[in-house]
Amino acid sequence: MVKIAVLGCGRIGRMHAANIAAHPKAELAAVYDLYAPSANEVGSEHSVPVAQSAEAVFADPQIDAVLISTVTETHADYIEMATAAGKAVLCEKPIDLNLERVNRCAKAIAGTKVPIQLGFNRRFDPGHRAARDAMLAGEIGDLHQVVITSRDPGLPPRQYIEAAGGLLRDMTIHDFDLARFMLDDEPVEVFAVAGALIDPALGAELDDVDTAMIIMRTADGKQCHINNSRAAVYGYDQRVELLGTKGMLLSDNRKPQEMKRFTANSTEIAAPYLYFFIERYHEAFMAEISSFVESIENQTAPEVGFEDGRQALILAEAAYRSIAEKRCVRVEEIG
Amino acid sequence: MVKIAVLGCGRIGRMHAANIAAHPKAELAAVYDLYAPSANEVGSEHSVPVAQSAEAVFADPQIDAVLISTVTETHADYIEMATAAGKAVLCEKPIDLNLERVNRCAKAIAGTKVPIQLGFNRRFDPGHRAARDAMLAGEIGDLHQVVITSRDPGLPPRQYIEAAGGLLRDMTIHDFDLARFMLDDEPVEVFAVAGALIDPALGAELDDVDTAMIIMRTADGKQCHINNSRAAVYGYDQRVELLGTKGMLLSDNRKPQEMKRFTANSTEIAAPYLYFFIERYHEAFMAEISSFVESIENQTAPEVGFEDGRQALILAEAAYRSIAEKRCVRVEEIG
Amino acid sequence: MVKIAVLGCGRIGRMHAANIAAHPKAELAAVYDLYAPSANEVGSEHSVPVAQSAEAVFADPQIDAVLISTVTETHADYIEMATAAGKAVLCEKPIDLNLERVNRCAKAIAGTKVPIQLGFNRRFDPGHRAARDAMLAGEIGDLHQVVITSRDPGLPPRQYIEAAGGLLRDMTIHDFDLARFMLDDEPVEVFAVAGALIDPALGAELDDVDTAMIIMRTADGKQCHINNSRAAVYGYDQRVELLGTKGMLLSDNRKPQEMKRFTANSTEIAAPYLYFFIERYHEAFMAEISSFVESIENQTAPEVGFEDGRQALILAEAAYRSIAEKRCVRVEEIG
Amino acid sequence: MVKIAVLGCGRIGRMHAANIAAHPKAELAAVYDLYAPSANEVGSEHSVPVAQSAEAVFADPQIDAVLISTVTETHADYIEMATAAGKAVLCEKPIDLNLERVNRCAKAIAGTKVPIQLGFNRRFDPGHRAARDAMLAGEIGDLHQVVITSRDPGLPPRQYIEAAGGLLRDMTIHDFDLARFMLDDEPVEVFAVAGALIDPALGAELDDVDTAMIIMRTADGKQCHINNSRAAVYGYDQRVELLGTKGMLLSDNRKPQEMKRFTANSTEIAAPYLYFFIERYHEAFMAEISSFVESIENQTAPEVGFEDGRQALILAEAAYRSIAEKRCVRVEEIG
Repeated sequence: MVKIAVLGCGRIGRMHAANIAAHPKAELAAVYDLYAPSANEVGSEHSVPVAQSAEAVFADPQIDAVLISTVTETHADYIEMATAAGKAVLCEKPIDLNLERVNRCAKAIAGTKVPIQLGFNRRFDPGHRAARDAMLAGEIGDLHQVVITSRDPGLPPRQYIEAAGGLLRDMTIHDFDLARFMLDDEPVEVFAVAGALIDPALGAELDDVDTAMIIMRTADGKQCHINNSRAAVYGYDQRVELLGTKGMLLSDNRKPQEMKRFTANSTEIAAPYLYFFIERYHEAFMAEISSFVESIENQTAPEVGFEDGRQALILAEAAYRSIAEKRCVRVEEIG
Repeated sequence: MVKIAVLGCGRIGRMHAANIAAHPKAELAAVYDLYAPSANEVGSEHSVPVAQSAEAVFADPQIDAVLISTVTETHADYIEMATAAGKAVLCEKPIDLNLERVNRCAKAIAGTKVPIQLGFNRRFDPGHRAARDAMLAGEIGDLHQVVITSRDPGLPPRQYIEAAGGLLRDMTIHDFDLARFMLDDEPVEVFAVAGALIDPALGAELDDVDTAMIIMRTADGKQCHINNSRAAVYGYDQRVELLGTKGMLLSDNRKPQEMKRFTANSTEIAAPYLYFFIERYHEAFMAEISSFVESIENQTAPEVGFEDGRQALILAEAAYRSIAEKRCVRVEEIG
Repeated sequence: MVKIAVLGCGRIGRMHAANIAAHPKAELAAVYDLYAPSANEVGSEHSVPVAQSAEAVFADPQIDAVLISTVTETHADYIEMATAAGKAVLCEKPIDLNLERVNRCAKAIAGTKVPIQLGFNRRFDPGHRAARDAMLAGEIGDLHQVVITSRDPGLPPRQYIEAAGGLLRDMTIHDFDLARFMLDDEPVEVFAVAGALIDPALGAELDDVDTAMIIMRTADGKQCHINNSRAAVYGYDQRVELLGTKGMLLSDNRKPQEMKRFTANSTEIAAPYLYFFIERYHEAFMAEISSFVESIENQTAPEVGFEDGRQALILAEAAYRSIAEKRCVRVEEIG
Repeated sequence: MVKIAVLGCGRIGRMHAANIAAHPKAELAAVYDLYAPSANEVGSEHSVPVAQSAEAVFADPQIDAVLISTVTETHADYIEMATAAGKAVLCEKPIDLNLERVNRCAKAIAGTKVPIQLGFNRRFDPGHRAARDAMLAGEIGDLHQVVITSRDPGLPPRQYIEAAGGLLRDMTIHDFDLARFMLDDEPVEVFAVAGALIDPALGAELDDVDTAMIIMRTADGKQCHINNSRAAVYGYDQRVELLGTKGMLLSDNRKPQEMKRFTANSTEIAAPYLYFFIERYHEAFMAEISSFVESIENQTAPEVGFEDGRQALILAEAAYRSIAEKRCVRVEEIG
């Protein structure tokens, strides 16, 4: 059993704590949150100790690893402290909203032997993974196009958006990572358009956007499209499509059950999609923990590493520059 | 060009006339209806002569074939007269509501060389036929079960029902034929239950039913289920399912187009099904004409013959006896 | 926390033990199996005590409830012993293969205050339940037809079949219960046909069948069809369809993920269905435990009770008589 | 009956001739092709006169309208000649490969009273149109994103490509028009990437591309993505998706029939898509003729006019400039 402490007991930290507690090879060893009541609640729910500080966690010789789901501005510090203490790290995205800070963190942890895994859960989704596996197995021949549809079910609270660092660093960053995963290659060019169509105040007051379209291209010409919306009222829309010379693969949306209605006006009326990431990617989050545990137990590199987190942020920066300058931006301009 | 006259210009006769007129290898040679205005309307729509009597059609040396879509009680007479006159026949189902009359007709036409085809259009539906072809090609190994769902979109007018001869002779007769087509074998046992659930008055006043379930079995044990309803408000529901040792084949419903809606409450909301037989089986009706023309041109036996019409009626009679006696009826008791 | 002991650590007992252990409101209190190594394995996996006998479990004041998943012939005895000891019972189907024994058990437990729940897990499937809820809410008006497709993915081992008591008591019994659940009413007539089509030796040597079709009818004429096969090679096929005057509801099959392939020969190629009951009905089994826990905590009658188990067996007996006598059997002839 | 002559008897001209001949309100009045045998074949198939020249057609007082499906370089000349002769025009896309020529043609025909309709058949597809109608009816609230997937089933012959004027003027031009139709607004910015991924020789030798991704934006910020491939081996892939504040609409692909296979490895295996535009858009082509006939009979403006053809070409030119200059191009730079 790998003993994992959870730092940060917000919505996603609470979910991770439950997943770790339920995982057959992991043990929830401790929880911590700057806001003590949150930590206490999660701790008592799982009957595990509540740490008084992140430092106390890093110093605890009983703890093998930490899952970092605190506020973004603490991620890089905690990664550095945890690795210095020899703790394996599974860190929620993004590493930091500032690429400079990410680069400094990269230097600080250079040479570390402990696994540092980034929380790009979508790589572990059974459907997305089945598509990539089929593609890598040659089922669709040479890959030419990737189309990622990624739309959240509703606008998050204003407070969340203010701290999130912008749509592309907060939400699209998952899609940038998924694009790299599906392309099995690095984008070299990025073009993006975006707007505050759902809530114009986001643009006027926060200089943020809620609706975006992006095209990226790899060195050998493979094309990738991402489309994003913060508010697909019909549910969390998560599709990935791979077009190759021998066929197409589509990882489609999922529903909680398959009951369909047939009425005088319509047929095959299906249930709403699984509401949001906690429901839609439940198996992916569990598989993410499994993968993390395996890399700790086998001392292997994590399936999604620190550099993957850095590259996704670089693509976000390239996209922001493209939006600002209305031109195709070469990724090397950023990185 | 095969010159075909249409006898009977009701809803289905009118459709057949249009299909023949549009068919590249057939020519609508004349139309006839006991009610002259109907014949005149169809005749003028296609600019073809209106015959003054069925006899005049049979006597016309310019006419190669007749499509009989008059009222049921005339079918057997017209089949006998047409074949005596050397005209090929495509006759709407049923041959007659009375099995005795059908048997006498069979004797009367014994030995005829002209093709006599029955209007079991569903055999020509591209989906149903693809399922049968795949089954015959061995794709699902040995066939074990056939499930036919066959539901009309709404109760027909009372007047229609009064003349139709009962649900099983009027509507299920198509499914009895389809069962024989899909089983590629003869049912030897029939069990049926039925009721007037949609309109109890049908039962109380006409001794008819509107909702039925049937099980049949072949000599080697293959099982077939048919379910019927006169009023599936969600549309004309026409499905055939074949289960075999190596897989399953399903000929599913069809929609006029594939536009789907996604709302805050539901996803993948599809269009209503194609409304009724004229829309749903349009291609089948055209292919039926093609098949008829080919059997005339090549002097081959029709794909669906007189005996198929007789066997379907025998199954209907067996089912009625099963309903009355609440027992499994052997087909040989009837035939 | 409700403390539940599991009696019988075979495939399904092991699954129940894991589900209880993972359930937030239940605690796995002990395990027992006649074959000690099985009990030891499950006990050590969940770090719970292994009881030396069923009697020891019933005598243990720490234990609130028992889940009976031992061999069928022990079910009735254990139900009687457990209720006598005041333990709530969740018993796998069937209560017994012999209706007499079931009736004696019913007498023995008459008047007991402890909940006795039957393991008809399908009632708790989210899709099936959503269909029933929509039907009860009036969405499809008056119910006219229920069609249950229930096919296992492959023939079980010969040894299993020899002990199972026949297809209808072992497998169809779930569908008989589901029919009662969906009809929200009692069938009064049963007609069945069956054969050993997949493995004729089952018929020749064991007088058993592997493929069946059944029609049932309620007092007010509602019709229900069940079709069964022991070997649907394309996967565990579990569908329920409800036809009413205002529409249709279909609880369709489920897949582990929604990745689809598009090739030069075919489109929309989907993943195999969830393999068998442990995968397909995982959520249903968990909800079954939740329901059991609730009825213990709230001292309410279980959602599926002893009488439901008895009625399902009565329908199986009626179906067997129908097969033997090739006639419609009234349920009152049996019960 | 509107009397229409078909100029150009290649693949699409032949199809139009058959559609006009089968149309209840149109009459195929004459056919013409520079290559006489083609015209003779189509003429004799439909028993209509073969004109000796396009001029003869324009001079024939019996002819109401012309359908121009000759080689692209003749389109503008024929439009000018036909309108000068008072004939209504239905012209296949594009008007010309050269925007200058299109603009001169626009001047030449300015003020004409006869309908000039462009052959953007996709506007008439029942599924696409149902999506647009639902959007215009407010079903999805405010429109934010349009995603058009448009992939041909296979590379056309080299000879075709050499004459076609480039992927974006030949194939994407349909999508540019469909984008304008669905956005119900004008794109003001265009960004495009493209490559010769399927056949690199197309790029090396013809400076053409076979795979493209485009993003466009309207003045009020609505976003539109188009993706193209010349060779989707799984069939002609034609999808349109509309995302709005209240929901999503998807016009999905169509199959010739709905037979599905279920095997030991896969489920729900569907038929290949309708192969190419003649099959997929059959109903659209017929509706296009209906619309043309109506605008002639009612003397109303055609649903898709000359200016629509010009605007689609302008978007193609903007996209080519974007590809060349790797920047977002404002449409006003071109037009």
